[in-house]
Amino acid sequence: MRIVEVGPRDGLQNESVLVGTGAKVAYIEALAAAGLTRIEAVSFVHPRLVPQMADAERVMARVPRRDGLSYIGLVVNERGLERALDAGVDEVNVTVVTTETFSRRNQGMTIAQALDSFSVIAARARAAGLRVTATVGASFGCPFEGEVSPGDVATMARRCADSGADEIALADTIGVGVPADVRRLTAAVREVTGLPLRFHFHNTRNTGYANALAAVEVGAAALDASGGGIGGCPFAPAATGNIATEDLCYALRRSDVDTGVDLDGLVAAAAYIGERLGVPPPALLGRAGDFPPATTGRTAPGRTSRQGWVHVDSR
Amino acid sequence: MRIVEVGPRDGLQNESVLVGTGAKVAYIEALAAAGLTRIEAVSFVHPRLVPQMADAERVMARVPRRDGLSYIGLVVNERGLERALDAGVDEVNVTVVTTETFSRRNQGMTIAQALDSFSVIAARARAAGLRVTATVGASFGCPFEGEVSPGDVATMARRCADSGADEIALADTIGVGVPADVRRLTAAVREVTGLPLRFHFHNTRNTGYANALAAVEVGAAALDASGGGIGGCPFAPAATGNIATEDLCYALRRSDVDTGVDLDGLVAAAAYIGERLGVPPPALLGRAGDFPPATTGRTAPGRTSRQGWVHVDSR
Repeated sequence: MRIVEVGPRDGLQNESVLVGTGAKVAYIEALAAAGLTRIEAVSFVHPRLVPQMADAERVMARVPRRDGLSYIGLVVNERGLERALDAGVDEVNVTVVTTETFSRRNQGMTIAQALDSFSVIAARARAAGLRVTATVGASFGCPFEGEVSPGDVATMARRCADSGADEIALADTIGVGVPADVRRLTAAVREVTGLPLRFHFHNTRNTGYANALAAVEVGAAALDASGGGIGGCPFAPAATGNIATEDLCYALRRSDVDTGVDLDGLVAAAAYIGERLGVPPPALLGRAGDFPPATTGRTAPGRTSRQGWVHVDSR
Repeated sequence: MRIVEVGPRDGLQNESVLVGTGAKVAYIEALAAAGLTRIEAVSFVHPRLVPQMADAERVMARVPRRDGLSYIGLVVNERGLERALDAGVDEVNVTVVTTETFSRRNQGMTIAQALDSFSVIAARARAAGLRVTATVGASFGCPFEGEVSPGDVATMARRCADSGADEIALADTIGVGVPADVRRLTAAVREVTGLPLRFHFHNTRNTGYANALAAVEVGAAALDASGGGIGGCPFAPAATGNIATEDLCYALRRSDVDTGVDLDGLVAAAAYIGERLGVPPPALLGRAGDFPPATTGRTAPGRTSRQGWVHVDSR
């Protein structure tokens, strides 16, 4: 199972603490060192709207490059694509969203305009030799219009496939979906395209990991996750982080699904960015510890207080 | 799907802040008012070891009683059973654990002694007309001995079934399991007993909700959860709360599995106990809001900041 690391982009983009270029590069280096091979490192959007991504070019100029390590840049229009091409990304990710209200409010375009824009971006990116992902945002529900039909998602996926997408990503942007939705959506999209499917889950209502495991079962080619689960502060009223890479990879490893990543390395990367953000990352593996513990005979961290279990003496 | 509310017992037992009897009763009243019909309200253990449960009799004397509302008391020995009978519980839950080290450290008994003790307790409880659950603790892994084999879990389940259990609960006491484990364990236990299966998950490594949904798919009769997900402070190094009742019921409702509970009522109960504990409960539904929102046209709370999404303007 291919994990697409999105912490440097979707994670940091949603953190209010601005992180310096050097720290972003160090976070990316740590994630790559842990074995991640597809990293959504930056987005090319207006720095006034997303100040965290203002240094996208500088980040891309400093990240480690090697064979088999692919950097993705998120773009939303042709100007963004030009910046992405200049910055030397390996892939671009373009988001279209499922409802008119969300599309207008988030991207300032109708759905038709967004699909046209995707078509132009995809053609130019492919001409430049880049792989193109179409992310269908709010596939599992819209914050403005509510329920979204699988048929509408499939229609958008088909349009993007016809316009040259190499991969379709189904995104639960607001974290409302359940595994039954994953299966339903996948079936609908599979009817219209055979492109590889990537999934993007937020753990907003504690369903993100169940959804990810369900996506694996229905043949997902890739899963997005953010190192540390950053992107939604656990102390904020509405925690909305991506699912955490280390927690996802823990669950996959214990499910006998190979990801090729090193959990200790992921936990270290998460701890690093948590320190820069000034809050513990919401991921749980770093707090609870791996299981079984690496050292024979060592007690697993976790529920170790005396109160944590039942006790014999009830007199 | 029957939800067994364990917040008043397993949840509060693991909180360091002592909660008064009146607040415990109010929490239980709120949970019952939300539609929960099986509530593990107390444990009958030594007050020196578990001070939070010292007022078990006083709690039971004050909780609302009505037809169809069943209170469970956790007991670990005959003295506890006597207290439970005197206090008027409707059901007893008795824990046995899967490894010798854990059994000795947690209950001061060998596994053989614990199974003998269960047999005596079950016989007396049934003679008194009470339903008896055998919880097989650490079914998914032991903090001291590591991996636990499904065969060992099945052997313990069979022994408990032979001794008069009405229900077998499989507990992931330290929160290490994944859905594949749920399926494996269920298959192993199903080979030795046809008793109803109840599952008890902690979200220690973010796999608890996926496990719960997997348990539903393999025919679980009941799922434990705690209102608010209390039982493991989110700010502590090793968060170990039960899965949260409201988050679980949200996921089940969106999966078209009826639980008969009212999500708003659960969120209110969680907010109440969170206030008494002085920390926001780890459950996420109360922060993120229900979906789709109850009021037509209302924007779903959650990811509403401008930075939360992609933006059009990339100049």
